[in-house]
Amino acid sequence: MKELFDFISRRIPLNDEIRDFTQSISKVKEIKKGDKLITEGQYVNKTYFVVDGCLRSYVYDIKGKEHTLQFALKDHWISDYMAIFSKQKSTLIVESISDSTVIEASITGGIDNICEKYPALEFLHRKSLEHYIVNLQKRILDQLQLPALERYKLLLKKYKHIEEFALNYHIASYLGITQQSLSRIRAETRSL
Amino acid sequence: MKELFDFISRRIPLNDEIRDFTQSISKVKEIKKGDKLITEGQYVNKTYFVVDGCLRSYVYDIKGKEHTLQFALKDHWISDYMAIFSKQKSTLIVESISDSTVIEASITGGIDNICEKYPALEFLHRKSLEHYIVNLQKRILDQLQLPALERYKLLLKKYKHIEEFALNYHIASYLGITQQSLSRIRAETRSL
Repeated sequence: MKELFDFISRRIPLNDEIRDFTQSISKVKEIKKGDKLITEGQYVNKTYFVVDGCLRSYVYDIKGKEHTLQFALKDHWISDYMAIFSKQKSTLIVESISDSTVIEASITGGIDNICEKYPALEFLHRKSLEHYIVNLQKRILDQLQLPALERYKLLLKKYKHIEEFALNYHIASYLGITQQSLSRIRAETRSL
Repeated sequence: MKELFDFISRRIPLNDEIRDFTQSISKVKEIKKGDKLITEGQYVNKTYFVVDGCLRSYVYDIKGKEHTLQFALKDHWISDYMAIFSKQKSTLIVESISDSTVIEASITGGIDNICEKYPALEFLHRKSLEHYIVNLQKRILDQLQLPALERYKLLLKKYKHIEEFALNYHIASYLGITQQSLSRIRAETRSL
């Protein structure tokens, strides 16, 4: 649990009240490569903090092809936030792509209740949302304006060590390119 | 100012304190088609609520080509949120693409100060952020998995009346397609 407390205390003062509450809704889970923490069509009331390893969230399109929305490495959070924030059933799958250790935080009472009761956690949550919006807007603009090679380089910068965990098709399906294009790009990068 | 008060009161109780504060930081502006409210390289401490008309935010890539991040019609907010949230200089241009009426809200003291002083506004802001993340994640997934025709239909659903305001290249540069592709898609849509 130390990793999660460290994460929090870098952002807000971690007093006993916050520590006790966080502890009460959290539990450490060891998961195996291939384990799915969220699948489609369920109500989601858990969010996962990665202590070690790598997870990803993705969807299947109507042809059965996978598209990766997000990777989560050490110190990242992952869940189906579309489902949580819009109180709809999940459309994402959250899967561990390595043996991983995560801290599962249960938000069963709802984020609004937690935020009302613990203003410091509302601040932490709000700052994370703001930060995440910056990331998502940048990704949309990158997708619109940059060639795949540049987007691949940005991915490596954003998710350090991702190549130790992710398969070719994970990365290709995040960048929106074919595996063949990714191989070509990797060859180009190596020859630079 | 009534439109902004209506927007707020549909989401939180609009008491005198919130009303007076909102009034104190807001002013109505009539702007002309082509007017730019934000340009690149400036610190941004204003956000705009659209009463009437249409605005868009966009970037230029290194070849001088435009890419549209967002449209804002009646009751939408627009600014360079990447700049505001990361306290960096703006990279976006916010431009009115019709004669428009907006309410300019000055957040000179910083969002954190406003949120600390007015918990109800922090709640409103946080819910808007959550809602916006749902939208951005959906857009990324749509961009990855849907053909341009489907994304065009979703655009028309999301931004009703957008075609009364936006030029071909505005819409094409939002969808990440050429104007020729957009013309073809429009012809297909009309023949359905």
